[in-house]
Amino acid sequence: MSSPPLTHRPCITFLTDFGTRDTYVGQMKGVAIGINPNLHLVDLSHEIPPQQVLRGAYAWNDGIDAFPKGTVHVGVVDPGVGSDRRLIAAEIEGQRFVCPDNGLLSVILERSTLQRAVVLDQPRWWRSIVSSTFHGRDILTPVAAAWSLGHDIRELGSTLTTPIVTLPLPRKSKGRNSVSGQVVEIDHFGNLITNIDASDLPKTFASFKVEIGSFPILGLTHCYAEGDPGEPMTLVGSAGRLEIAVRDGSAAEEFQSPLGQRITVRWTEVAQ
Amino acid sequence: MSSPPLTHRPCITFLTDFGTRDTYVGQMKGVAIGINPNLHLVDLSHEIPPQQVLRGAYAWNDGIDAFPKGTVHVGVVDPGVGSDRRLIAAEIEGQRFVCPDNGLLSVILERSTLQRAVVLDQPRWWRSIVSSTFHGRDILTPVAAAWSLGHDIRELGSTLTTPIVTLPLPRKSKGRNSVSGQVVEIDHFGNLITNIDASDLPKTFASFKVEIGSFPILGLTHCYAEGDPGEPMTLVGSAGRLEIAVRDGSAAEEFQSPLGQRITVRWTEVAQ
Amino acid sequence: MSSPPLTHRPCITFLTDFGTRDTYVGQMKGVAIGINPNLHLVDLSHEIPPQQVLRGAYAWNDGIDAFPKGTVHVGVVDPGVGSDRRLIAAEIEGQRFVCPDNGLLSVILERSTLQRAVVLDQPRWWRSIVSSTFHGRDILTPVAAAWSLGHDIRELGSTLTTPIVTLPLPRKSKGRNSVSGQVVEIDHFGNLITNIDASDLPKTFASFKVEIGSFPILGLTHCYAEGDPGEPMTLVGSAGRLEIAVRDGSAAEEFQSPLGQRITVRWTEVAQ
Repeated sequence: MSSPPLTHRPCITFLTDFGTRDTYVGQMKGVAIGINPNLHLVDLSHEIPPQQVLRGAYAWNDGIDAFPKGTVHVGVVDPGVGSDRRLIAAEIEGQRFVCPDNGLLSVILERSTLQRAVVLDQPRWWRSIVSSTFHGRDILTPVAAAWSLGHDIRELGSTLTTPIVTLPLPRKSKGRNSVSGQVVEIDHFGNLITNIDASDLPKTFASFKVEIGSFPILGLTHCYAEGDPGEPMTLVGSAGRLEIAVRDGSAAEEFQSPLGQRITVRWTEVAQ
Repeated sequence: MSSPPLTHRPCITFLTDFGTRDTYVGQMKGVAIGINPNLHLVDLSHEIPPQQVLRGAYAWNDGIDAFPKGTVHVGVVDPGVGSDRRLIAAEIEGQRFVCPDNGLLSVILERSTLQRAVVLDQPRWWRSIVSSTFHGRDILTPVAAAWSLGHDIRELGSTLTTPIVTLPLPRKSKGRNSVSGQVVEIDHFGNLITNIDASDLPKTFASFKVEIGSFPILGLTHCYAEGDPGEPMTLVGSAGRLEIAVRDGSAAEEFQSPLGQRITVRWTEVAQ
Repeated sequence: MSSPPLTHRPCITFLTDFGTRDTYVGQMKGVAIGINPNLHLVDLSHEIPPQQVLRGAYAWNDGIDAFPKGTVHVGVVDPGVGSDRRLIAAEIEGQRFVCPDNGLLSVILERSTLQRAVVLDQPRWWRSIVSSTFHGRDILTPVAAAWSLGHDIRELGSTLTTPIVTLPLPRKSKGRNSVSGQVVEIDHFGNLITNIDASDLPKTFASFKVEIGSFPILGLTHCYAEGDPGEPMTLVGSAGRLEIAVRDGSAAEEFQSPLGQRITVRWTEVAQ
């Protein structure tokens, strides 16, 4: 562990279902800076719906790429806190994760390669008194802070002997000129974000149609401003996945679509 | 005031009833870093219900223990801003507080020992122009930032000559094999958090029953995951106080309990 | 670009309509600290109503004065993202701004002098891949971070050859003993904040009346605590503009006033 340059400041992010009304998030930050006063502390989201691990898994996947390699991401959507579910640390393509082993890494692991993972079984990194209901504060955050100080992941715990838990992800089926998926996120603007990746879509096409239920939307636009006000449109959003939007409106309100809504894309090829 | 080590970065936290829609919280942070650019700035909560000092007092009490000694906590739930209510700075068991003297410290002072307190009567620490409606920005925050720079509390104002204001706290009554208290906080998960401390409860018991209104809950669980889905349970939460939860649900919705709801615990002793 | 003192830490603020549910804000912060790890990152607001540029313009105006000169303020209320609207950087009375050129600076420019502005046409400062829907993350934030490192504004882009876009602001009309304006902001407390500045009001008066619709409020109070509980009052708020408040209540609920509600102030002069 060499001395960092003066301007080096490692970063810890937080993704939770805690909301921001209570002091839970602040308490985690207090623990973190008590261990490493040199940290950046960044909120990814605290509004994952309570205990909905899969929602957290998608949000985590979307949020992390913007951060420098070596950032430690703490995820606490943890309905099993205090049970015998494992807590883990994992390094994945240079990003670092600390979380319960309950599926929070499912979406990230679908597209990325696990480098190393350990189970958090070294109480010397934890707070001296560990509550049975707030491991985010008492175990995950102090481990993350220790990691940010330059300790090797192997110091944090024992190498996993069984795979990281992954949840079944919403299905996606690809045909020659079609792909079907689902709405997996609905954002603040009411955009319906699917599990259909840009790489599932053709680079060129003669015609392009997205079906949301029985409603067809023709064409693929480039940005929100291309649509007409109030008109639905489809585009590849900032996370690289197909989404349905309504210019100056909310697709979620317009379509009353729940998470899980099936979305089918059909296209015809450009004639050679 | 000795030179701090390069990595030392003091911390200021904020607890307010400002919400996060307006720029009020950001303005306080701007003032703070204009005075001490070396700070950590941490949000404890900005969702204390407007002007409900007692709610702030409980939240403050819960939030502070996770922070390093010397952290300066700014509290602004201040219906009396601009009136002749005092503004104070107080040092309590190594934590530092800056707030209106309106009861915000009531819960903390019930369990902790005041070391020293002053009234903020030294305008040299304040912003040059002080508005009549935003002392959080114009007085409390600049004083907190000055304190974080290493100034002694006695430089910030004159020693108090009358006691800090404390509000009457919800009552708690203890019998030989029972204790009665109230719901004093409802958190984001709908957990009903009481003013009954772990120390009010027996370490061992033959039977244990919590009554919320006329509804009995038997036993004391260790963590949320021990309950059956949808079933109410009681446990000692992360702030060390008895709470009532519903696994994968909301006790607040289940019981429709208001703040102030009476909670009684009864137990029988283990036979010797 | 000289070496900054060790404790110098520049600041970037963020004002958006992103909400805090998604990871969009976190992603911008990740990009920022990847470029300048020495930054302070401060949230001004993320609850500007979606795509309502004028609301953002008022909030930005209110929020910035508390920050040290040289702070870089990033504003992303950007319904035109991906269209041919310009992105700009501007220096105004020592504060720095990076935003779409869509009117977000309208209120600030009404009272302040533009020093220099450029159009962001230098992709070398941008993220290597720029999405068509999230220029806040891919262009505005990296430019802001580069600026915070000490680069001159002229390195960020070409000098503007046409004026910055400004939106028509709500009208205000002044008579000899009266001024009329509008409600332009409603804050978390339900205070109705107008576009009538303290400088529009008399320093002394024999009588003072504010009309909200046909409802008169007599007198001008100094602070919220001066009012009687439940009674409406008028005062000059922390942003230096006339506002209507209800002590221990919400003027927005009391008057059911929309944004744009006309407010008229009439006074009589003190007899000589």
